[in-house]
Amino acid sequence: MGEETRERETVRGGRRYRLTLSYCGGAYSGWQRQPNALTVQEILETALSELTGERVVVTGAGRTDAGVHARGQVVHFDLARDFAPSGLVHGTNYFLPADVRVLAAAPAPPRFHARFSAVAKEYRYRLVRARVVPPRWTPFAVSVREALDLERLAAATLYLPGRHDFAAFARSGGAHTTTVRTVHRAAWADEPPFLELAIVGDGFLRGMVRGLVGTLLEVAEGKRDVATFARLLAGAGRDAAGPTAPAHGLTLENVDYLETRPRARRAVVTSLE
Amino acid sequence: MGEETRERETVRGGRRYRLTLSYCGGAYSGWQRQPNALTVQEILETALSELTGERVVVTGAGRTDAGVHARGQVVHFDLARDFAPSGLVHGTNYFLPADVRVLAAAPAPPRFHARFSAVAKEYRYRLVRARVVPPRWTPFAVSVREALDLERLAAATLYLPGRHDFAAFARSGGAHTTTVRTVHRAAWADEPPFLELAIVGDGFLRGMVRGLVGTLLEVAEGKRDVATFARLLAGAGRDAAGPTAPAHGLTLENVDYLETRPRARRAVVTSLE
Repeated sequence: MGEETRERETVRGGRRYRLTLSYCGGAYSGWQRQPNALTVQEILETALSELTGERVVVTGAGRTDAGVHARGQVVHFDLARDFAPSGLVHGTNYFLPADVRVLAAAPAPPRFHARFSAVAKEYRYRLVRARVVPPRWTPFAVSVREALDLERLAAATLYLPGRHDFAAFARSGGAHTTTVRTVHRAAWADEPPFLELAIVGDGFLRGMVRGLVGTLLEVAEGKRDVATFARLLAGAGRDAAGPTAPAHGLTLENVDYLETRPRARRAVVTSLE
Repeated sequence: MGEETRERETVRGGRRYRLTLSYCGGAYSGWQRQPNALTVQEILETALSELTGERVVVTGAGRTDAGVHARGQVVHFDLARDFAPSGLVHGTNYFLPADVRVLAAAPAPPRFHARFSAVAKEYRYRLVRARVVPPRWTPFAVSVREALDLERLAAATLYLPGRHDFAAFARSGGAHTTTVRTVHRAAWADEPPFLELAIVGDGFLRGMVRGLVGTLLEVAEGKRDVATFARLLAGAGRDAAGPTAPAHGLTLENVDYLETRPRARRAVVTSLE
């Protein structure tokens, strides 16, 4: 979830690499490096610098907020020296804390950019429809005590796919040039006691998924009607929508790139909304 | 996983209760109370005693080993006073650590016995077919680095359902009167990167599921053939089978009782293998 400033970094080293990263966000002040708080970006840059002996700066596909998790965050960075991908995976993991793991590494074309080359991202939000959350899920799921009308929830969610102005769901602090985004797919999976939203889009505003979940829950609880929800997608102030759902229910599930298809001709898409 | 001694406890209080309990086993020396180690039974008895002001002794359906988790452990105990089920759930949780949660409570018939009334138990064992386990799953899944032949794994697993002598898979320390058990169902679900065994049976010897998993993995890795595995089910010494798979991959998933069916006439089965 992040700003969409369009700066491009110069390739300073000899080689660009791409990592897939999984982390539990509970102990971190989000992805992006900050002066006085521990972030996943800083943890990863420190580990990569210790491993390689170079000063490594990484760019992540999604700027997850404080407490948000990632299953398949993607990052890129440049190194002066060549590194074997398996060495990057296991070497970096040696220097990382247990709640952050590199799952995969690969060389990337010099124009590959973790954020700007991404064509789609998938987030998931996990609810537990029970007053008590099983302890395994306490850090990753949010308890919903109110009775939910799943038909109303599904009816409202059907309005999400498409190109909309999501201003009503964006938290302040994201320096967006536009609040228009395209949602490709959004659906709830009802697997008692869990209820999980999977949402795929070309990009997400800061706090957008959590704002959508908080507002959709108002619809499901009967506090807001479906038509009112649908109208918010034409653009509205943040106070027109519902509350921001808690961070720990949210996971950046994965990031799609064109070149992940086998033998795609182009590795990088140069211009994306 | 436990001994099958046939003692029956006297109903001392006025009322028998049944709880469903979920816990992460990583911090505990298993279910059963021990003199010099912290166990889930002790944690629960302490919490119930603090809540009720009575000295509560609980009996669990499955005596999970050190490090083994439970999603749906069932316990019973007696109280002199009446307690509302919701008070038992939330009151007990108030006194429990975050990695142990009471999910549900209900009054039970006086002859209900968490272990002896159980007609089936389900355990699950979760593997990750990757060298790096996503951090969310590190405490609950075991990494398998070797290449696995899933057809061989499935072929060997097909021998499990039925009544067999599982002595080759039992750890010492269980005071079993017989090593014969009936497996109702056993199947692996292949959901990359996970590979998970679900096994349902009338009862399990101490270490049985972990011994089966360790031995089945030898079959899948080509170190042991299917016929050799099948012959172990006729009874053999523990050293004839493979290693015991690590505890943290195993979860006691749930326990079935006849009276969980709606309006079943009898709440308790008096004699079970």
